[in-house]
Amino acid sequence: MNIAVLPGDGIGPEIIAEAVKVLQRIAQDGFDFTFETAPVGGAAYAASGHPLPEATLNLAKAADAVLFGAVGDWKYDTLERHLRPEQAILGLRKNLGLFANLRPAILYAELADASSLKPEVVSGLDILIVRELTGDIYFGQPRGRRTAPDGAFAGQPEAFDTMRYSRPEIERIAHVAFKAAQGRNKRLTSVDKANVLETFQFWKDVVTEVGQQYPDVQLDHMYVDNAAMQLVKAPKKFDVIVTGNMFGDILSDEASMLTGSIGMLPSASLNEKGQGLYEPSHGSAPDIAGQGIANPLATILSAAMMLRHSLGLPEQADRIEAAVQKALAQGLRTPDIHAPGTQKVSTAQMGDAVVAAL
Amino acid sequence: MNIAVLPGDGIGPEIIAEAVKVLQRIAQDGFDFTFETAPVGGAAYAASGHPLPEATLNLAKAADAVLFGAVGDWKYDTLERHLRPEQAILGLRKNLGLFANLRPAILYAELADASSLKPEVVSGLDILIVRELTGDIYFGQPRGRRTAPDGAFAGQPEAFDTMRYSRPEIERIAHVAFKAAQGRNKRLTSVDKANVLETFQFWKDVVTEVGQQYPDVQLDHMYVDNAAMQLVKAPKKFDVIVTGNMFGDILSDEASMLTGSIGMLPSASLNEKGQGLYEPSHGSAPDIAGQGIANPLATILSAAMMLRHSLGLPEQADRIEAAVQKALAQGLRTPDIHAPGTQKVSTAQMGDAVVAAL
Ligand SMILES: CC(C)[C@H](C(=O)O)[C@@H](O)C(=O)O
Ligand SMILES: CC(C)[C@H](C(=O)O)[C@@H](O)C(=O)O
Repeated sequence: MNIAVLPGDGIGPEIIAEAVKVLQRIAQDGFDFTFETAPVGGAAYAASGHPLPEATLNLAKAADAVLFGAVGDWKYDTLERHLRPEQAILGLRKNLGLFANLRPAILYAELADASSLKPEVVSGLDILIVRELTGDIYFGQPRGRRTAPDGAFAGQPEAFDTMRYSRPEIERIAHVAFKAAQGRNKRLTSVDKANVLETFQFWKDVVTEVGQQYPDVQLDHMYVDNAAMQLVKAPKKFDVIVTGNMFGDILSDEASMLTGSIGMLPSASLNEKGQGLYEPSHGSAPDIAGQGIANPLATILSAAMMLRHSLGLPEQADRIEAAVQKALAQGLRTPDIHAPGTQKVSTAQMGDAVVAAL
Repeated sequence: MNIAVLPGDGIGPEIIAEAVKVLQRIAQDGFDFTFETAPVGGAAYAASGHPLPEATLNLAKAADAVLFGAVGDWKYDTLERHLRPEQAILGLRKNLGLFANLRPAILYAELADASSLKPEVVSGLDILIVRELTGDIYFGQPRGRRTAPDGAFAGQPEAFDTMRYSRPEIERIAHVAFKAAQGRNKRLTSVDKANVLETFQFWKDVVTEVGQQYPDVQLDHMYVDNAAMQLVKAPKKFDVIVTGNMFGDILSDEASMLTGSIGMLPSASLNEKGQGLYEPSHGSAPDIAGQGIANPLATILSAAMMLRHSLGLPEQADRIEAAVQKALAQGLRTPDIHAPGTQKVSTAQMGDAVVAAL
């Protein structure tokens, strides 16, 4: 099983090192993992002038799965857009066809205090956001700058983008979401803005149609503004949420912050062939890079998702998740989740603790 | 001073009645307010087949200000989109050119417990969201359904919308936001998605340019996904937020829910002539309509914003706001904000208490 390892920028290399350590420990039990590393993001731009070099893309395409750290650093903020680090992640999603982004928002009992929400509102929180990842206004053509061709400001300079979803794109993400709901509490909330957008009236119609194939799943529909409110008010009412790329970007980050410990949250981005890219939900945190204080657990949990969704090793995934739980139960905490009465450890010590728990 | 009164659906008529009561009390001190009422939303559809009848629109256009209740009821959910109640509010915004939506999110000390966030995270919260209201993907043409003309799904049925912002549209909302910040803590956060969208790279560029005219205001820029997180994590770090129509829809609702008492939050939507539409931030709540239990304070506070922004009576606005504070300090609470140790009152009793406090 070939794993492409793309550490990226900021804390990326440090957290990836721990996840690889954990996977190597799993491999010792009789699995054949091959790791090949390549630069991505700002690191790749610095080395070769492009955030997603051809060789990196080819490595990712050929691999069974991609383990991704994080990209981005303020020093690249003034580059032209197509050279900026985050274009690498957009390019990987598009080129690998990674249309299904799974982002769990789970509150670990041990970390309940970290949330900015009241304990009774978030304790036991366990929701899954299924975000469409290759369509919508992220990639829709045409887009650009021009002189406004019509409307009240015709003749003025303007910029524009196109939101688009085709029927097959909506159908395939809906199937992913309904299946995910079947494996959980069998409730799915489709988030749209059908009262304003043609795209999301169509989205709602198609999701409703697909839902007829999943009579065991209770489907409801919610406007995105209301979803943003309900996540704050009563997040535990959700089980699985499915939505488009743009709304999913916003709501999945909002949901992850409800836990107060975004350093714990993994993500998976899958294509139709079962290939996937696995990355922590948090960013590259250049401000703390190189200090050995980053939390590697989101990346380690992303590696677990990789075993489950791309490498056909669900039991090994369970083992890793249990090992993470154990490290938490032992009171070990990186600084981002440290609280009185627990033991502060470094990035590497946390990785070692997970390996030991395995 | 001519005030168009559009009660709308659900609890709209009940809450509007209390706001009018309060305005009539102000009038007794020597102001000449004329109230003219017209149907809007589902009520207008039921009466005349259209959610925004010509006569209602003309009344609103001719008025100095519009006092708006709320629209929407499940019984209209199956109507074609252009006949649904919420089209009335979109039509009023567009036809009156109400491009600047001001939505304060304030936590009243007396109601701190109502928030789902921890008291230390939200106590003293006072942020203002300035949302552009007549552009963006809400109104951008072209939009519709078609056969995909290009891309990976060419030939498939699809739906699409267009996000657009012209330079003058961004400039004028930026000026409103910078001026609002000057009257507050002089910090402005412009929320965009410049890393993905052409429209919002342009937005960021133009807001930055306009900012040069306001050297006393500290401007920063934040991606919308990060803003959705920071609102949960540390909302008090914000002073004024300015953003586009779509992101503003989501973030302003998220922000208002941080307070836990959306029944308290007013809004103003202004055009270039100083005309405005004033409405509570909450919806029509058809489930509790007609029971006399709705909270009228958001509508009463919207009337205060009307006095301040459209009718040139800022001192009378202050008086109303102080009267609302007094009613809260007396321990009076409608059921939505009721807590042990306070006195539960009806919609009309709350309105009367505000009048008495005046
Ligand atoms: C970096 C950025 C382009 C990206 C996105 O908007 O999708 C990020 O926010 C994410 O959610 O993975
Ligand atoms: C009813 C709907 C069209 C409207 C919007 O999306 O603008 C509402 O959510 C609001 O924020 O006033």
